[in-house]
Amino acid sequence: MPAATSDRVPRSDTIDRLRHSIRRRQWEMLRALLDTVLNTNPFHRRRLDSIPLHTLEEFLKNCPLMSKRMLVHDREAFPPYGSNQTYPLENYTRFCQTSGTTGPPLTWLDSRDDWEAMLSSWQHIFSEFGVIPGEDRVFFPFSFGPFLGFWTAFEAASRVGCLVIPGGGMSSNARLQLMLDHEVTIACTTPTYALHLGEMRQQHPAMLEKSWALRAFVVAGEPGGSQPGVLARLEELWPGVKILDHHGLTETGPVSYVDPVHPNRLRVMEDVHFAEILDPASGVEVLEGGTGELVLTTLHRLGCPMLRYRTGDLVKKVYADDGGLCLDGGILGRLDDMIAVRGVNIYPTAVDAVLRRFPEIVEYQVREMRHGALLDLKVIVETAATGPRDPLLIAERVSVALRDTFQLRMDVEAVPQGTLPRFEFKARRWIKEIR
Amino acid sequence: MPAATSDRVPRSDTIDRLRHSIRRRQWEMLRALLDTVLNTNPFHRRRLDSIPLHTLEEFLKNCPLMSKRMLVHDREAFPPYGSNQTYPLENYTRFCQTSGTTGPPLTWLDSRDDWEAMLSSWQHIFSEFGVIPGEDRVFFPFSFGPFLGFWTAFEAASRVGCLVIPGGGMSSNARLQLMLDHEVTIACTTPTYALHLGEMRQQHPAMLEKSWALRAFVVAGEPGGSQPGVLARLEELWPGVKILDHHGLTETGPVSYVDPVHPNRLRVMEDVHFAEILDPASGVEVLEGGTGELVLTTLHRLGCPMLRYRTGDLVKKVYADDGGLCLDGGILGRLDDMIAVRGVNIYPTAVDAVLRRFPEIVEYQVREMRHGALLDLKVIVETAATGPRDPLLIAERVSVALRDTFQLRMDVEAVPQGTLPRFEFKARRWIKEIR
Repeated sequence: MPAATSDRVPRSDTIDRLRHSIRRRQWEMLRALLDTVLNTNPFHRRRLDSIPLHTLEEFLKNCPLMSKRMLVHDREAFPPYGSNQTYPLENYTRFCQTSGTTGPPLTWLDSRDDWEAMLSSWQHIFSEFGVIPGEDRVFFPFSFGPFLGFWTAFEAASRVGCLVIPGGGMSSNARLQLMLDHEVTIACTTPTYALHLGEMRQQHPAMLEKSWALRAFVVAGEPGGSQPGVLARLEELWPGVKILDHHGLTETGPVSYVDPVHPNRLRVMEDVHFAEILDPASGVEVLEGGTGELVLTTLHRLGCPMLRYRTGDLVKKVYADDGGLCLDGGILGRLDDMIAVRGVNIYPTAVDAVLRRFPEIVEYQVREMRHGALLDLKVIVETAATGPRDPLLIAERVSVALRDTFQLRMDVEAVPQGTLPRFEFKARRWIKEIR
Repeated sequence: MPAATSDRVPRSDTIDRLRHSIRRRQWEMLRALLDTVLNTNPFHRRRLDSIPLHTLEEFLKNCPLMSKRMLVHDREAFPPYGSNQTYPLENYTRFCQTSGTTGPPLTWLDSRDDWEAMLSSWQHIFSEFGVIPGEDRVFFPFSFGPFLGFWTAFEAASRVGCLVIPGGGMSSNARLQLMLDHEVTIACTTPTYALHLGEMRQQHPAMLEKSWALRAFVVAGEPGGSQPGVLARLEELWPGVKILDHHGLTETGPVSYVDPVHPNRLRVMEDVHFAEILDPASGVEVLEGGTGELVLTTLHRLGCPMLRYRTGDLVKKVYADDGGLCLDGGILGRLDDMIAVRGVNIYPTAVDAVLRRFPEIVEYQVREMRHGALLDLKVIVETAATGPRDPLLIAERVSVALRDTFQLRMDVEAVPQGTLPRFEFKARRWIKEIR
């Protein structure tokens, strides 16, 4: 039986061979990109001039990392769009701004080809997600503003032959009604907004009784779609509806999507990204199973290329059987979000994971209270309006769960439903307070 | 001198010949469309079965007119999308809803080809408007919802090679700031929203002092862009900025655009629309210079074709020198908007034209007050916050102007700035009150 043959080879050897061939293919693309970029792109010429980048080994050894801060400085030095342009400005047809989650909003310009490359990535994702042309109706309850958001997903869904329904400028109730009336099968949102729509639906028994055609949420923009706590809550609010996670950056485009075979991990699209996972302290690539910062080099999107860009995303490296790079557990957190509270390193995503275990909690907020050098966390949880629940009891149970997880006491307060702000785009639940 | 030759021929003969050749070209396209539609489109098969449509003459004589009411009834009979589909539903990739200005919102589905046809129309319009690829930055301060709005203009502007900037979900102030920061040269809005942005700019002296790159508003969605009153007010708020009017319908796509040579008229795009201007009472085509209802037959957009569709738009027919059909003075009003007040026929656009003569008036509302069979109009005008203006005096002057125009007394009340609602999309200034 030929299938058994490969069993005789230890898996790691096979993976090594597969990785080698993936890296070789990527290097060919990257080499071609560098030929163009190093000729015409002022930003990268300045950075990389006279640095030898003739082999993949040289690239990994010599190409310095890029950070968001460097992009910001470049914009300040060459306003308003910086100098990271491979072509003259008139070649750029699309305008985006980062949402400003981790810094001031950055404008991003894309050439027609770059935009097309991102549409191709989404076409690939939709195909992997089993989206059916001519059958799926894809709804985008998203205000089509100057952020990248789901713009490329929207255009790509129409291109693959789905009926696409834009939902800018509508209330959440009108959106739910539209999803019902027009038998929407897929909705593309942030995980937070999928939760919000689910909660709103729960408040309208008439809506719950109706038969929904919805079969999947494609979620992006926040890490939630790969977090067990968020997934469990979504499963409760939207029984039977699949949650298909996607992760991308304005700076690089679509990066990864949930592995249909292993829903607990994201697959990196290695035909468009040369991805490294580096130990943040040493800058050395971590081994399989190790955790580090995702560093990306765009292989297409030539107009404003990123070479070894520090995403700030903390990920765990695993390989699929075909050698493909995967991020186990999705985006585990953000390096710049990590805070040290009395010696304990805490990532907001870890706190989120604990809170999501409580179905009574419909929204929450964490306040970082700084008294001089001392930092304390106060957690405010908003509890559901219905059900016989004692807020004091919930606060106490949450406090115990947080202490068990972090070995740290946090002040927990329960407030009634409707108290905390809701979010249609990226949620901002972590508030800094200086006293 | 050969140029003089044509001078010897009377103009009307030339026009007749040109019209004949336009109509012949259009009939070829229409014949091809009918071949497909009459084979597969249930809605039109039912309507036109066994009606002879073998020649243009037969088409004009035999093809019955379509109204919006018929579309509504068809949707009710064959929910939710009606039976006007030439292809199976899975061929449709774009979803729109009419804004509901003149009836319940109607869903509109477009096939990829139909959408492409609309993009082509916009590419033509942008080229006629002198839009410069690679130079113009086109801003769409518009909430990209499920209405057609500027969706096709947005995609077409990017396709011709302009930098396109989507502005969904932003405040008007943020939009003005973005226009400044990113040196927007063209903004696509309703005329009402262009006025609103102008008023807001006026309220910020710092903004007025800045140097603006804006050179044109492309306006659509409302008749204002061809009305002298609105144009004068826009010219005052946005000195030096061109107002480029466009008119289209969700049901038919882009129809006409302001003639760059004669800014007081709209040119119909006759390569995509077979347009007739019919006397509403007799159904007979009006002569040049005559006023009637615009009736449209779509020559492309095969997926949901309109054959002799009564638009409800009142227009005046003139011809350009090349024989092209033009609408003198733009859209003069809507047939279904006409109201009779004590024997006087009044179109809201005519009232609008009078009110726009007063620069002190920043917004207005007309209330139709019905007492049994009697109908009265009450006009509420909102006056600017600044300037030494006596509201009572303004109300009196408006009242006189209205009486002079319509030979009718209307009650006029002046209210302070900020009292009346503002509109980002289509304005609703005409309120029906039943007492």
